[in-house]
Amino acid sequence: MLIIMEPNATETDIDNAIKYIEQNGFSAHISKGAVQTVIGCVGGKTMDKRNIELLSGVREVVRITSPYKLASRTFQQDDTIISVKGAKFGGKYAGIIAGPCTIESEKQMDETAERLSEIGVTALRGGAFKPRTSPYSFQGLGEEGLKIISKVAKKYNMAVVSEVMDTSQIPLMLKYVDILQVGARNMQNFNLLKELGEINKPVLLKRGLSATIEELLMAAEYILSGGNRQVILCERGIRTYEHITRNTLDLSAIPVVKKLSHLPIIVDPSHATGLRDKIAPMSRAAIAAGCDGLEIEVHAHPQCAVCDGAQSLTPDDFSILLDDIKKIAEIVEKEVT
Amino acid sequence: MLIIMEPNATETDIDNAIKYIEQNGFSAHISKGAVQTVIGCVGGKTMDKRNIELLSGVREVVRITSPYKLASRTFQQDDTIISVKGAKFGGKYAGIIAGPCTIESEKQMDETAERLSEIGVTALRGGAFKPRTSPYSFQGLGEEGLKIISKVAKKYNMAVVSEVMDTSQIPLMLKYVDILQVGARNMQNFNLLKELGEINKPVLLKRGLSATIEELLMAAEYILSGGNRQVILCERGIRTYEHITRNTLDLSAIPVVKKLSHLPIIVDPSHATGLRDKIAPMSRAAIAAGCDGLEIEVHAHPQCAVCDGAQSLTPDDFSILLDDIKKIAEIVEKEVT
Amino acid sequence: MLIIMEPNATETDIDNAIKYIEQNGFSAHISKGAVQTVIGCVGGKTMDKRNIELLSGVREVVRITSPYKLASRTFQQDDTIISVKGAKFGGKYAGIIAGPCTIESEKQMDETAERLSEIGVTALRGGAFKPRTSPYSFQGLGEEGLKIISKVAKKYNMAVVSEVMDTSQIPLMLKYVDILQVGARNMQNFNLLKELGEINKPVLLKRGLSATIEELLMAAEYILSGGNRQVILCERGIRTYEHITRNTLDLSAIPVVKKLSHLPIIVDPSHATGLRDKIAPMSRAAIAAGCDGLEIEVHAHPQCAVCDGAQSLTPDDFSILLDDIKKIAEIVEKEVT
Amino acid sequence: MLIIMEPNATETDIDNAIKYIEQNGFSAHISKGAVQTVIGCVGGKTMDKRNIELLSGVREVVRITSPYKLASRTFQQDDTIISVKGAKFGGKYAGIIAGPCTIESEKQMDETAERLSEIGVTALRGGAFKPRTSPYSFQGLGEEGLKIISKVAKKYNMAVVSEVMDTSQIPLMLKYVDILQVGARNMQNFNLLKELGEINKPVLLKRGLSATIEELLMAAEYILSGGNRQVILCERGIRTYEHITRNTLDLSAIPVVKKLSHLPIIVDPSHATGLRDKIAPMSRAAIAAGCDGLEIEVHAHPQCAVCDGAQSLTPDDFSILLDDIKKIAEIVEKEVT
Repeated sequence: MLIIMEPNATETDIDNAIKYIEQNGFSAHISKGAVQTVIGCVGGKTMDKRNIELLSGVREVVRITSPYKLASRTFQQDDTIISVKGAKFGGKYAGIIAGPCTIESEKQMDETAERLSEIGVTALRGGAFKPRTSPYSFQGLGEEGLKIISKVAKKYNMAVVSEVMDTSQIPLMLKYVDILQVGARNMQNFNLLKELGEINKPVLLKRGLSATIEELLMAAEYILSGGNRQVILCERGIRTYEHITRNTLDLSAIPVVKKLSHLPIIVDPSHATGLRDKIAPMSRAAIAAGCDGLEIEVHAHPQCAVCDGAQSLTPDDFSILLDDIKKIAEIVEKEVT
Repeated sequence: MLIIMEPNATETDIDNAIKYIEQNGFSAHISKGAVQTVIGCVGGKTMDKRNIELLSGVREVVRITSPYKLASRTFQQDDTIISVKGAKFGGKYAGIIAGPCTIESEKQMDETAERLSEIGVTALRGGAFKPRTSPYSFQGLGEEGLKIISKVAKKYNMAVVSEVMDTSQIPLMLKYVDILQVGARNMQNFNLLKELGEINKPVLLKRGLSATIEELLMAAEYILSGGNRQVILCERGIRTYEHITRNTLDLSAIPVVKKLSHLPIIVDPSHATGLRDKIAPMSRAAIAAGCDGLEIEVHAHPQCAVCDGAQSLTPDDFSILLDDIKKIAEIVEKEVT
Repeated sequence: MLIIMEPNATETDIDNAIKYIEQNGFSAHISKGAVQTVIGCVGGKTMDKRNIELLSGVREVVRITSPYKLASRTFQQDDTIISVKGAKFGGKYAGIIAGPCTIESEKQMDETAERLSEIGVTALRGGAFKPRTSPYSFQGLGEEGLKIISKVAKKYNMAVVSEVMDTSQIPLMLKYVDILQVGARNMQNFNLLKELGEINKPVLLKRGLSATIEELLMAAEYILSGGNRQVILCERGIRTYEHITRNTLDLSAIPVVKKLSHLPIIVDPSHATGLRDKIAPMSRAAIAAGCDGLEIEVHAHPQCAVCDGAQSLTPDDFSILLDDIKKIAEIVEKEVT
Repeated sequence: MLIIMEPNATETDIDNAIKYIEQNGFSAHISKGAVQTVIGCVGGKTMDKRNIELLSGVREVVRITSPYKLASRTFQQDDTIISVKGAKFGGKYAGIIAGPCTIESEKQMDETAERLSEIGVTALRGGAFKPRTSPYSFQGLGEEGLKIISKVAKKYNMAVVSEVMDTSQIPLMLKYVDILQVGARNMQNFNLLKELGEINKPVLLKRGLSATIEELLMAAEYILSGGNRQVILCERGIRTYEHITRNTLDLSAIPVVKKLSHLPIIVDPSHATGLRDKIAPMSRAAIAAGCDGLEIEVHAHPQCAVCDGAQSLTPDDFSILLDDIKKIAEIVEKEVT
């Protein structure tokens, strides 16, 4: 941490600041500049920088070390590659996850999975527990849904991706699911993150609606620090004042994350835009920006979907889109899996 | 729901839209205007409006009923008043909750509670489980902490306010706590909200960092719809691009909520601003805007606080502030409790 | 406009609302639904919908016609294509504008233009008047700069793109410049927009830092309604709470604008991200999302640039990027010009 | 400026960074810490910090001096007090500006001014040039309007406050207006700011819809650096995702500005909320937060107002509100003028 004093800070101000950090177990390293004094804080443990900023004569306190460690490129130079049943995320690979928003019935899942499997997709998504803003909306089939997706996935040799909403659901998820998804609204459900740090399966962590990229990496750090090193990050749109699209897809998060972290980052264009006709352009854009994969809602009959049909593609439309994605991937030297 | 067609929509477009809503169990009510056609949808259950917006010739679909019912003024005209050990929230009352961010020790809690009690505060806050953005930060004393705050509160005849982070903690909280607080990051932890709908104690629900006021009321609806009618809403700052303050306190949420809902709304100026010297002006402003209470961080020795000392007031500073608050409350016809 | 009454609105409320709109020259068209009444307002001129929303018993007023006309797809189905010296924007064309942020000297402009011209770029950018947040920063060469860029552009047969900051600069710009650029901070400088509506040259209109897409189209409407139909829109990043990138590039604006309007929309990845290493991925993403062109900062010696060198590419890096852009453009059926 | 190197930066990285800043006229001051190296840059003129951040091994560059000088408390400790015909802004004074959004006719202005004058208001607002988002909306009476407001103000001995939209309007404004207002959309119209720096009348500078507080102070710096030291800042709501209120009034800007700057800051609750019934609570809150004045829309017949009647108070309602404001002002030791 660096303490930057005001140009008009007095000697007493400087002495008080030094005393304060020393009392907190840090040693001070003073640089008197032409205009103002800067105090480096060395050693010590964590200290709330705002406490120092409230001292007289202090202009600003600057943190100079990254708050996340295991998630950073400094800790690990090489890209983390996560591989589940043929789908690979990270490094030169871009993995594709597709399927309906919600598991509705075995018939629905089977129809969709069959077509996806033909197209070459190996990771099947589907929600059994649905986080709905209204208590009066359909809340998912629960374990029954997990049984269905698991059975269908086995039939077509696909990996299962499904959302976990609460620590109490983890044991059930481990029984049926290959990649546990954490939704945007749970990105800072720290109890959930902590327990996911102790499992042995990949976690797909979605960026919160108003989370900074640094906070996303801090949330990943919770999982990593528990021992689970298989974290896939997911950009799914952030909240802004623009209201025509449901959220604003922040594709610049891709090159930013890839510089700061070794973890793979994929994109969910379905939830970000909320509208079917925006999914194809945003999927192409995401892959062109260098993402490590895509999660796209596909439903055999979107117009009959219980939930989010408006943002689902048909298998046919998806198949055409996937061709474009593969062509663009080649240009940016990625292999679609 | 109203379907607003494009000015250049064809007869076929209109027929298709009507057919679509009828297939979904609604009946159509058509108004052909000079410029464009509007179709009213009557009866039926929920329908994702985006599905209709994707139909050809449809300009926009407008929801005309409120998504929340029990939380609305239409459902209940009179203000809900929540009363716990002398502290009253709602109607003509403004309740005060004060105490440290984190429960550190019995000595710390006792010292603080003693002073608060002398000043006339009857609701004592203190966290036993702390949601921290870093896995490496202090995470709270857990049940040990709850025992301490409960013991101290009993001694000074105060109510206990503490945060619940997970459904698994509810039984423990019920044993020691009078008002269960849901933090901003958990405002849309729907499993937690559902279970809090089944308890018999007041819930203090904080607005999420990027939650709209409507979403806050929907989150309250989750609790209300489970049968628990004791919900206190709390504005604590929203995330914007302004970075000098930690968050932007949205005080206009007070008159907005009071028009839309009968539920009490209080303000937390400590977390909103994150800096001690901004708490007094923002507390005065909140009460002048007509809020139903305040939750303020007070610590006997802020400079030694384990957590958030930078945003805590000393009991002395708080006492002076409380005098101002009472004077302003009188002007806006509120009684401070 | 539709007036949606509250479910509990009285007959008097409804009568008052009708009387109000009739007094304002509209005729009322009433639909009494099962739950609530909706009043359509026909004829009349503009009316501030908030006036009606303040009437007793009114829940909401919904505008059902678009506030912009000439900019909308309803007014003109076919894409507007704007063509200047070989660079084409709109329809199947994606035009490339490149050059330094600021005109520094003839040598600098000539060196850069020579290389760009070899690569095949036909539109040269360069600022003579610079909008700087600090009054102490370099403010541009003024007319001297315009003379330089004009001379250099003539030599290599390129079009000149430069920013106009004030109505008083328009005559000067018309003398030297082919495409007049309006910066993000001036998107709602309505006097400037009005006067640009009367000129006979294309206007490149940048989206404001906190402008909605609808406001961008309204700003375009100002220019169009004056008679100038040559408007190129430009997405250049919006302000959000994310602070690692300077702004958040909203690429979903591309498919949104292309649905609502016939005007071409290009992307400026340099200002949006503010960092050189993010420009290539965001340029590829923009073209993959279907944009009608790109404006990219290129400087022969970025490290010596007076302004914004950090977000400028070298001609060599730009040349490599342009190859990728052309390959991606082919996949999305665009021709790079 | 401080250059913070990465923990794994090499000696070559450090040498390159030093060489770079020396080439730019700065001298380097190196501190090698236990974990990483920090380089202080002394002397030199401005340098784009992003250029350094692109160098290998550089983690971050931190600016340690304020970008504004004349606007800062460091430059001037005492509050600037601006006084016009009895209305005083700054220090212990809170000034009141009231009047209609738009000048419609002499009758309208006279009726309103007469009542305001009786209540004790000495600064009369009214727009002659209106910045409207739609080119089809009423654009103001122009000079005719200025003549009206000037005549009426003289009759009641009030100061005139009116908005200037363009440099070309300044001479006209100087003839009729006492305080020249710069609207939110023009906060970064740097040409306008520069010319206002050369006049000899107070400027009321509104915060842009997405401007940070630092940017507001930088805009003030433009005016101050031209020699005009009479700048009144105005918080009028910022753009966020919340859509029930037109903008989100950021009252914490008041204590923040008062700490950083000596300039007075007032609040415009009318534009911030956009709805009449939110003005009174937000006005009370603003004064309780310590603002140096209020600008409130008052119209003798709001329901007939050409523009923004929905956010105007009647003189009677305003009079009642003003009584509350005076009582609250007393508590926070302000004198209403």
